[in-house]
Amino acid sequence: MNQSTARKARDTGTEQKSHVLTLPLENTRVDRSPHTYERWLIAKLLRMAGNPPVRFRLWNGDVIEPDEQRAEFTLHLTDPKALYALVTNPNLAFGDLYAAGRLEVEGDLPDLMEALYRAVHEARQKWPKWLDALWRNHAPRSTGISEAKENIHHHYDLGNEFYRLWLDNAEMQYTCAYYETPDLSLEQAQLAKLEHVCRKLRLKPGMTVVEAGCGWGGLARYMARNYGVKVHSYNISREQLDYARKEAHKQGLDHLVEYVEDDYRNISGQYDAFVSIGMLEHVGKENYEAMSELIKRSLKPDGIALLHSIGRNRPMLMNAWIEKRIFPGAYPPSIGEFMQICEHSDFSVLDVENLRLHYAQTLSHWMERFTENEDKVTAMYDEHFTRAWRMYLAGSMSAFRAGNLQLFQVVFAHSDNNQLPQSRQDLYNFPAAPEEG
Amino acid sequence: MNQSTARKARDTGTEQKSHVLTLPLENTRVDRSPHTYERWLIAKLLRMAGNPPVRFRLWNGDVIEPDEQRAEFTLHLTDPKALYALVTNPNLAFGDLYAAGRLEVEGDLPDLMEALYRAVHEARQKWPKWLDALWRNHAPRSTGISEAKENIHHHYDLGNEFYRLWLDNAEMQYTCAYYETPDLSLEQAQLAKLEHVCRKLRLKPGMTVVEAGCGWGGLARYMARNYGVKVHSYNISREQLDYARKEAHKQGLDHLVEYVEDDYRNISGQYDAFVSIGMLEHVGKENYEAMSELIKRSLKPDGIALLHSIGRNRPMLMNAWIEKRIFPGAYPPSIGEFMQICEHSDFSVLDVENLRLHYAQTLSHWMERFTENEDKVTAMYDEHFTRAWRMYLAGSMSAFRAGNLQLFQVVFAHSDNNQLPQSRQDLYNFPAAPEEG
Repeated sequence: MNQSTARKARDTGTEQKSHVLTLPLENTRVDRSPHTYERWLIAKLLRMAGNPPVRFRLWNGDVIEPDEQRAEFTLHLTDPKALYALVTNPNLAFGDLYAAGRLEVEGDLPDLMEALYRAVHEARQKWPKWLDALWRNHAPRSTGISEAKENIHHHYDLGNEFYRLWLDNAEMQYTCAYYETPDLSLEQAQLAKLEHVCRKLRLKPGMTVVEAGCGWGGLARYMARNYGVKVHSYNISREQLDYARKEAHKQGLDHLVEYVEDDYRNISGQYDAFVSIGMLEHVGKENYEAMSELIKRSLKPDGIALLHSIGRNRPMLMNAWIEKRIFPGAYPPSIGEFMQICEHSDFSVLDVENLRLHYAQTLSHWMERFTENEDKVTAMYDEHFTRAWRMYLAGSMSAFRAGNLQLFQVVFAHSDNNQLPQSRQDLYNFPAAPEEG
Repeated sequence: MNQSTARKARDTGTEQKSHVLTLPLENTRVDRSPHTYERWLIAKLLRMAGNPPVRFRLWNGDVIEPDEQRAEFTLHLTDPKALYALVTNPNLAFGDLYAAGRLEVEGDLPDLMEALYRAVHEARQKWPKWLDALWRNHAPRSTGISEAKENIHHHYDLGNEFYRLWLDNAEMQYTCAYYETPDLSLEQAQLAKLEHVCRKLRLKPGMTVVEAGCGWGGLARYMARNYGVKVHSYNISREQLDYARKEAHKQGLDHLVEYVEDDYRNISGQYDAFVSIGMLEHVGKENYEAMSELIKRSLKPDGIALLHSIGRNRPMLMNAWIEKRIFPGAYPPSIGEFMQICEHSDFSVLDVENLRLHYAQTLSHWMERFTENEDKVTAMYDEHFTRAWRMYLAGSMSAFRAGNLQLFQVVFAHSDNNQLPQSRQDLYNFPAAPEEG
């Protein structure tokens, strides 16, 4: 499906929408010999990237080995222009070229990406200023109310059928699972995540919860089913809400769960708990103070808030390719940046947990299923799309493995709330994951 | 004991040193009627403080009731100058006047302090700029290496005998205990704290630990005794080290524990764990980057670091009186400020726990014992000293109760350390506190 078909499909409400790269694979192959300066560029590129264990095979079959170590991976470039794109803007071009089939990887894709993340992470400390300026990631898109709608539409309205192919079939969770033990299945770990969040919020029957950004509504249903609480869940993705409502109705939860099609900024009322799983990444730093004020006014005096978000060890722009092609407007904050939300309203941080390696495992489970279903994905969209998503999943998994991305769950309360749990002991009284069955 | 006696005692190495207020109680009592503007000043003071439930009884017996609510406490001012000092610089004067016996409190001191903290916290949002400037807390003292020695000497070398009167008799812990259940004794809760810290560090026999600031050395001995690890503990308080070494020797731990009389900035070597309990408050923000680099170079690739510190919900200067009279150089950071330490060296934050109400309970236990031993304290120092410390303990307890102070335990690791615990489950496998006995 190309761009205009995609737009048409969206406008007419047809399923299987795609706003991601759906360009046909480019065929720009040539077989001339590489020039001397092209070989020099590659050597330079490898050095600047911190000498990852990577060799290049060029369009004419020539192979360029790295200086210092044995290569474990081969990157095959199909044409000279691919090389120039890579040298000029590697953050963006690596994903684009891979998606377009102009950069092929021999070796395990996630392992390659992890090796690249680790090498570049070390090397960039020593980059000259001009290189840093050239390769710097661009600023993310705006996340004002109208742009937010477009940004979210871009990603989450790809079609429930698409996500169903590789997300868990327990509650369609498109966020980090909780592998309380390493042997859990994806379904168990996603349910364990929902349970872990409920425990951190100390839910009791009859309480009220507001959720900012609810995906396919799994957390709201889990809370209603297992904790007997009333949940208001906000989302601006129409397709996700359709699914969420049908599912809640099927489960007889209509009296407890209300899904609201609106921007989280329009949340009204006061609740015993404020929860947001995997939305903060889309909020944008410029909106943190407003978000802080929103939580301040939405949370009852003894209420507890929990935000679950991808994050960073220190402030850093989102990878340009992910931000441009996959997740427009995305920005994962460092804890320091996150603290703007807490400090602005004098919230008291009670608990921070980092589930970084849990996200790596979640992505590994997603990728297994995605790989099994690549043919179906290509039939739904096209090969370009499949390759882009393969790169996105592999790259994300390796970013969590390499410590480039983090996953924070932050629990906080009003500063004068003294109705606090004595300890975190009760989070661990019995297993959070259901037995497989 | 007056100042010059105290200095002499210190110089000759005699016990029972005091570098805190040891001025004689001032007798500036008068019994003239208050002027109209003095009454106006008190009404203004009460309004600016957010109308706490407090009445004033003046030097001549006149009583001034608050505008809006019934008073629960009476503050008795012995002289007009006390009133002027209070109006000009309440943060500093309140403690000074109380210590000097020129301000007497009728009603429970910690309850009064909590009511004041809560009222002022609300009210200060609306203070005019001039008032904020007038009442603003002053900048804390420098914490350079030589000043640090003096600052620490000021507080921690008061004499082990003094602290023994009211700290726990298990391991002389002068930091927040961990009341894993609310009914624990001070001794149980302090041992539970040590155990909780060891678990968070995931200690195993044969590991090496470095400790920055070790008090009377209790954590180091606990680690060696219960986990079979080798500990290097740094402290610049001579008296504490003397005690720590004798105690380790008595317990047959000389081969595992080494107490080093040196500034934490001179730590050398690499360790499996870096721990610091209750020292960060004395480090000073200007030294966070250096501290970050110190931890970076002292921690093995798979090592875990834990810092335990009093903190704030948002950046705020230390109470002027505490900083000037009790804890020179003290500054409790917000998590955002704390993150300078983590972000500067690209550390990955694994876990943050806030034990605010545990510190309130610790202080309540300390204060019970302190109150029982006030006669002994006065015999060791003088009444001024006893009153100052009573105010300090009561004020601190109420600051934790009112949410003015926090207690953070922050666990972090190098960004590329993937040898991380699967979950926090194992911190709670069995009770951290020993059974009483």
